[in-house]
Amino acid sequence: MNQKKRILVAGGDLRYGYTAASLADHLETYAVGFQSAVSEKVQLVETSAEDLPLCDVLVLPMPVSDDGILVNAPFSQRNISIRGLLSALKPGALVLGGKFGKSQGIFDQAGIETADYLAREEFSTRNAVPTAEGAIQIMLEEMPCTICGSQILILGFGRIGSRLAATLHAMGAEVTVAARNVVKRAEAEMLGCQSITFSGLENAVKHADVICNTVPALVLTEPILQQIQQNALILDLASKPGGVDWDAAQTLGKRVIWALSLPGKTAPVTAGEIIAKTILHILDERGMLDA
Amino acid sequence: MNQKKRILVAGGDLRYGYTAASLADHLETYAVGFQSAVSEKVQLVETSAEDLPLCDVLVLPMPVSDDGILVNAPFSQRNISIRGLLSALKPGALVLGGKFGKSQGIFDQAGIETADYLAREEFSTRNAVPTAEGAIQIMLEEMPCTICGSQILILGFGRIGSRLAATLHAMGAEVTVAARNVVKRAEAEMLGCQSITFSGLENAVKHADVICNTVPALVLTEPILQQIQQNALILDLASKPGGVDWDAAQTLGKRVIWALSLPGKTAPVTAGEIIAKTILHILDERGMLDA
Amino acid sequence: MNQKKRILVAGGDLRYGYTAASLADHLETYAVGFQSAVSEKVQLVETSAEDLPLCDVLVLPMPVSDDGILVNAPFSQRNISIRGLLSALKPGALVLGGKFGKSQGIFDQAGIETADYLAREEFSTRNAVPTAEGAIQIMLEEMPCTICGSQILILGFGRIGSRLAATLHAMGAEVTVAARNVVKRAEAEMLGCQSITFSGLENAVKHADVICNTVPALVLTEPILQQIQQNALILDLASKPGGVDWDAAQTLGKRVIWALSLPGKTAPVTAGEIIAKTILHILDERGMLDA
Amino acid sequence: MNQKKRILVAGGDLRYGYTAASLADHLETYAVGFQSAVSEKVQLVETSAEDLPLCDVLVLPMPVSDDGILVNAPFSQRNISIRGLLSALKPGALVLGGKFGKSQGIFDQAGIETADYLAREEFSTRNAVPTAEGAIQIMLEEMPCTICGSQILILGFGRIGSRLAATLHAMGAEVTVAARNVVKRAEAEMLGCQSITFSGLENAVKHADVICNTVPALVLTEPILQQIQQNALILDLASKPGGVDWDAAQTLGKRVIWALSLPGKTAPVTAGEIIAKTILHILDERGMLDA
Repeated sequence: MNQKKRILVAGGDLRYGYTAASLADHLETYAVGFQSAVSEKVQLVETSAEDLPLCDVLVLPMPVSDDGILVNAPFSQRNISIRGLLSALKPGALVLGGKFGKSQGIFDQAGIETADYLAREEFSTRNAVPTAEGAIQIMLEEMPCTICGSQILILGFGRIGSRLAATLHAMGAEVTVAARNVVKRAEAEMLGCQSITFSGLENAVKHADVICNTVPALVLTEPILQQIQQNALILDLASKPGGVDWDAAQTLGKRVIWALSLPGKTAPVTAGEIIAKTILHILDERGMLDA
Repeated sequence: MNQKKRILVAGGDLRYGYTAASLADHLETYAVGFQSAVSEKVQLVETSAEDLPLCDVLVLPMPVSDDGILVNAPFSQRNISIRGLLSALKPGALVLGGKFGKSQGIFDQAGIETADYLAREEFSTRNAVPTAEGAIQIMLEEMPCTICGSQILILGFGRIGSRLAATLHAMGAEVTVAARNVVKRAEAEMLGCQSITFSGLENAVKHADVICNTVPALVLTEPILQQIQQNALILDLASKPGGVDWDAAQTLGKRVIWALSLPGKTAPVTAGEIIAKTILHILDERGMLDA
Repeated sequence: MNQKKRILVAGGDLRYGYTAASLADHLETYAVGFQSAVSEKVQLVETSAEDLPLCDVLVLPMPVSDDGILVNAPFSQRNISIRGLLSALKPGALVLGGKFGKSQGIFDQAGIETADYLAREEFSTRNAVPTAEGAIQIMLEEMPCTICGSQILILGFGRIGSRLAATLHAMGAEVTVAARNVVKRAEAEMLGCQSITFSGLENAVKHADVICNTVPALVLTEPILQQIQQNALILDLASKPGGVDWDAAQTLGKRVIWALSLPGKTAPVTAGEIIAKTILHILDERGMLDA
Repeated sequence: MNQKKRILVAGGDLRYGYTAASLADHLETYAVGFQSAVSEKVQLVETSAEDLPLCDVLVLPMPVSDDGILVNAPFSQRNISIRGLLSALKPGALVLGGKFGKSQGIFDQAGIETADYLAREEFSTRNAVPTAEGAIQIMLEEMPCTICGSQILILGFGRIGSRLAATLHAMGAEVTVAARNVVKRAEAEMLGCQSITFSGLENAVKHADVICNTVPALVLTEPILQQIQQNALILDLASKPGGVDWDAAQTLGKRVIWALSLPGKTAPVTAGEIIAKTILHILDERGMLDA
């Protein structure tokens, strides 16, 4: 019988403590860059530690590094050099991270294989749950009325939009979905929601208590913002540029909340477990889970 | 054609502004004890005002008064005397309030009919929605994991317990309901929840991420508290004495939140509308809504 | 340690075979009046059999008897006399049945205690599930369109009406509930349905694809039937007189289906298990389940 | 202002009467091959009729033709030649059909543009609703227990599998989904279902009351069929070869139902409307709906 594989989780925020704890149910797990371990099964080590045996897998956070040199490790009291971690790896080891960016070169140079768990569709699919719950938390906090009975307009019907629509509908909201694709609109209708194209947006926003954007493009332009009720809540979940004309929104005095990275903020345990599930699936595909 | 009836809303917290706004869709509505009106249809007046015509109905807040003399009016800059309001009423006027308490004597003495909208079952039935959403908001804020996939134990299956169970189940939680009555347990099972009797509580709490009590009696005693996971959240929605042995909980270091009066805190607009709906129904029963 | 109690199931339709099978998980179970047993744990006997030891509990079907003399036993090749069963009972035995009617006298005379499981609220509560599914089966069979997207009007919001409304809403129908009681209407709205009073019925029926009555009183009178679309389906689940003016419906050429006793017809296994659960709960209350 | 476009629906089963009726809300609609029209707005014509003006669009059924010569028109008393229909078309007319097969050559030769509405994803997405309801109808008819509380195993999680899983879960069934793709499994879990890979099938079938296949490949092989409970229902919704080893199933005495073309059978109105919606969307994309 084989030995369990050894895995080292290096750095990352609160989520990665839970990731390590989840991994420890299946692998011999070490962690560096944390003050305390979430689970007794995880062995906390220091990078320079001689008690750290060579590992089969290294898990790095998302993003892996800000400068391409040090691991992104907000809980660590000392710097963790990416290059320094290489010595903890067995030959042929696998390095998993979320967006390698500039650090990719280090591994390429050393001939070490990397894989990005952020790029796995299963990761973003599962993350739609904590994202939707985070958005619902904000709505509950910010709205003076109940979700049940509210008019909620959701822009986009991808993973997050569809999860949000389904959950809000189940909570009793009257949900309208704006989507470009007729298939998405058909799916929204099958969920019990109304559906519109973006050409109907200017009219649809008028009656909305909440407008929640998931489209990473400027969809809430000034003419549309003008039609939104003064006390409506605009929630933007779209990454990078977002979907709202912020200057116009400010000038018009609209209430906009731009909520990013909700999984880590609202449900770090679940977010950490989702990272662990994705990693375990990557390892399983490579036959690295059979002990 | 008859004239619309005149109604005066006197005092109360934020909710009563929305109550007045809702009433104004059906009645000639005046309000006293507010700095500004929520709706243009509501006419703000002062008690002493000569521009206040005699009213058919007076709406008082919940509770009506703390001392039995002055109306409970947190937003008012001057005191509003209950007795003083009587002069604004037509002969045969109706006074509606939520718990009259000591103030009841004033109306009895004056021979004025009163009715308690808090005592109406429709009121507490509708209030289960904002209460459940308020409880869910607290769970989302306090739990480090998502509701979807969590083990949630609900004690009691009355209006609030059943609404909470249904909504949490729809959000993907694994819900167990503890109820004394076999009919309630059958109803919980029909909703897709597990059900237990209170004799099974000591065992059931062990696996719960959240324990939410709605029973107004001491159900979470020390022996049961001892079985609860250290990082579990205990949420007590039961009124007055609550359902938790607080001393034991504190000694054991359990995380308990006692959440009362959620509708007014988390959804004042909806809470105000529910008061208005109940009042309108009382008036409709008495034939006072036909304009 | 005590012996398991002995229980004899006598007669009844298909359901009672499953009732006996369920009881056999908890009690030493005998059955008379069946050609074959559903479960190996049930011992099939004949009334006259000498191998039948004295029993603690006798289970009779619903209704117990048509003539007050013989057990209602459609699967039995020979008659089973109620009086004859008495000799199979221990002193102090309990007899459970569903509507004793004329047979009650036999037990009273013999000083044997009886209890009616049909009268237990848990029984009718649980039976709402197979009843609602039976009604949905009829709708699926009879309607040329999908339930999803249909306009369905439900009259009454008791156990069956509320279960039906919830399930049809979850399937994507647009459900309207007519109920006299404002609390019931509030509950229907909280489920995501529209609600009306019966005074709004004449107008509401016009747009309904299906009208499903659960009220045991004449609610679908001629003037209302006249407003119903020609191709709409009228489904009457109400017992005894039903809720439809049949003569008027026939004259007007409306499509009416009167569906009674759905649990036994559409889900005899579940219906039998519900009888068994109710019986087990009655025995548990009397301390007769502790082996 | 422009004239409405003229559309001719030729042949097809019951559904196409409803398709024509739906189209008539937006276009000047003619139908050939029916005994009577569903809607007064549809003008019934004969192919040879001189009262049929030249049309902009021709709608043919699915499949268009069995022999490549005559339109598939089960309700028509006379043969409708595909080639004969060409004379009813304006120059530049569009022909829409579901699987043209051998008839494609006729249009290519005549230089007439065709489009297959069956190939549109919106068509199959919307059709998942009547398919799922048809499957549920069969389950309700064939199962002796309620769907609520049953163990239901669904093979595949495409459009039909996911709709079925969601609806059955909402009805209270305990649903397990087998899917190859981890993303599909994650989606099934997010719906509240259990999920397994196909390697876990042999074990999972043991506890299932219903096994519903949607995968168009042999998944229920003899070794797996052997593990299925004797009274379980096997429902195969997969097209062409289906997913069941029929010989093995018959030898083993398993109860298998192969249900195809459910939308047209169980909900012809909805199925017809879905065809109309797809056609209208195709025409809208080409700017042919602006009157």
